Amino acid sequence: MNQRLTKLMNWMKTEDIPFSFITSSENVFYLTGFRSDPHERLLGVAIFQEAEPFLVCPKMEVTDAQNSGWAYEVVGYTDIENPWEMIQSRVNSRINNTQQIAVEKQHLNVERYEELSTRFPSATFVSAEAKLEQLRMIKDEKELASLKKAAEYADYAIKVGTEAIQEGKSELEILAEIEFEMKKKGIAEMSFSTMVLTGANAASPHGIPGATKVQKGDLVLFDLGVVYEGYCSDITRTVAFGEINDKQREIYETVLKAEQAAIAAVKPGITAKEIDLIARSIIADAGYGEYFPHRLGHGLGISVHEFPSITETNELVLQEGMVFTIEPGIYVPGVAGVRIEDDVYVTSTGSQILTSFPKELLFV
Amino acid sequence: MNQRLTKLMNWMKTEDIPFSFITSSENVFYLTGFRSDPHERLLGVAIFQEAEPFLVCPKMEVTDAQNSGWAYEVVGYTDIENPWEMIQSRVNSRINNTQQIAVEKQHLNVERYEELSTRFPSATFVSAEAKLEQLRMIKDEKELASLKKAAEYADYAIKVGTEAIQEGKSELEILAEIEFEMKKKGIAEMSFSTMVLTGANAASPHGIPGATKVQKGDLVLFDLGVVYEGYCSDITRTVAFGEINDKQREIYETVLKAEQAAIAAVKPGITAKEIDLIARSIIADAGYGEYFPHRLGHGLGISVHEFPSITETNELVLQEGMVFTIEPGIYVPGVAGVRIEDDVYVTSTGSQILTSFPKELLFV
Repeated sequence: MNQRLTKLMNWMKTEDIPFSFITSSENVFYLTGFRSDPHERLLGVAIFQEAEPFLVCPKMEVTDAQNSGWAYEVVGYTDIENPWEMIQSRVNSRINNTQQIAVEKQHLNVERYEELSTRFPSATFVSAEAKLEQLRMIKDEKELASLKKAAEYADYAIKVGTEAIQEGKSELEILAEIEFEMKKKGIAEMSFSTMVLTGANAASPHGIPGATKVQKGDLVLFDLGVVYEGYCSDITRTVAFGEINDKQREIYETVLKAEQAAIAAVKPGITAKEIDLIARSIIADAGYGEYFPHRLGHGLGISVHEFPSITETNELVLQEGMVFTIEPGIYVPGVAGVRIEDDVYVTSTGSQILTSFPKELLFV
Repeated sequence: MNQRLTKLMNWMKTEDIPFSFITSSENVFYLTGFRSDPHERLLGVAIFQEAEPFLVCPKMEVTDAQNSGWAYEVVGYTDIENPWEMIQSRVNSRINNTQQIAVEKQHLNVERYEELSTRFPSATFVSAEAKLEQLRMIKDEKELASLKKAAEYADYAIKVGTEAIQEGKSELEILAEIEFEMKKKGIAEMSFSTMVLTGANAASPHGIPGATKVQKGDLVLFDLGVVYEGYCSDITRTVAFGEINDKQREIYETVLKAEQAAIAAVKPGITAKEIDLIARSIIADAGYGEYFPHRLGHGLGISVHEFPSITETNELVLQEGMVFTIEPGIYVPGVAGVRIEDDVYVTSTGSQILTSFPKELLFV
């Protein structure tokens, strides 16, 4: 049994939960190693305290599931078969009591919830999400290796983007060049919609890449990431196109100082809140407090936004193995928008920065 | 009140449903004109039989919602406010009884369902999905105009892809050139992951674009679409790179004949099933029945897969205003994979094909 499953099964024993049914692509991948997104079709893994787990997926994915390293039963169903009947009979052959079922309450839809309620009428439903978030928050070596590789590609994407900046080119054209290069490198999926924002667009928290052309004197903001073997990276860099004014420069240096100070403080034992407040107070002291309207960062892994959340109110204590972004920003409408973001891994004594594209203000 | 809302409200009167709460991005866009994807944050539109509807969204999107043409109340909430309290008080100020609430049971998650159940404890829940699917299935003129435009871009993308084919280029490189060109044209979003598959990959129903290079003698399959003003296109073309053999040619001609015969039969009054069977029997008669493993097509609109579903068992009668794909395919492992797909609009007397890239076998 893999460690992740064992930990979930131990939690089920402690909480007296005989049956968990996990259906989000992300958590199924985490628990089984099988990465799939069957859209509206059902994908799920059924887990018990002692009995052998089983995976349910569309029939045409059964071979892929078996090849992914999942050593237990795989139940395939065709479009004309009812997967719920198959699930019910397998659960009933494994356990006698289903008085509690753990599901992902933020993911499972009402239709599937009603199916489970009907087939296991004595069940009450509890949420498995907090436990899974907690497990996923601490990365193992294999996960770290994927995150590092994803970060390397993100660094390269920023390089491509900064080199693509030229008078007359639009945000979307530069963005297209980045994604073109990434695809040529074999990256099939970005971890979210790539952002290339210039001038006033970068200074708006609502900016969306469009036909706006870069102009001399603009700060150009890149925010992007890639998916590598199921793991996401997320980097932001802001660069200067031609000469910029003193105010833009001051904003850049303030964000950079805040970012570096926050990273320098990362270590096991400090809270998420303390890290956020280090960056936030530097920005506030420089007079830009009201222009930093978002949290300092977010966890990173199979999802591009996961736990821990680095906010000014989160008292969570950082631990070795956590991976998250640190991304302070200042957005002054009509003046400048700057954000600098790195992916940070908590080591036993401090931190390791996974993204490495230079941060001294780059003039292109 | 817009016609779509009026139709839903009339249905609510007939079904004795005092309150509908619709939360999927697609249906909120359809009913309100406001296009937004707030990810894990709540977006919803509350609809009543007589009282004025209201929209709920994150506070930072309120202005966008108002500018989208929605003429009624917009309720914004910040990350530290509870939107459910706001919803509850507004519902209670509009209506006295909430014994039935219509929701999207395939979309609403258990957490939100439990919130609604707690705040409206006398409610039973019914599904609004079938009604919304039925409304969305018949396109109005504005929707048709967007779908046509989306189809034009898809035609252009196929042109770009076929012109990009060259000895030594990989599937992902060709794919990257297509998406690069589309971004340069201002298309920010493809309607699904673009597929470029060559040779054996095209012949596998599981093919995923990768590092495989196109080779002389390959059939190269493109399947792609774009989102234009919220509406999706979806086209497939298969072209020959260099000389191909007689078997590949026969497979191509069989698929083309099946596709054209199915399209020619489209008109109001015929069933989805009849259309599917016209294509299916041509393929079966040519001896390839077992190599056409999927339905003939699917509805197209705000979602890239919606209703009607064109299957061999769907007895739905086609009506003017429906838009769907027709996309027969033959996949013979080790020999060839061919699919040809167009987007078809049902007119009062027959059909109009929205996609127009040529279908005679193209040699590149």
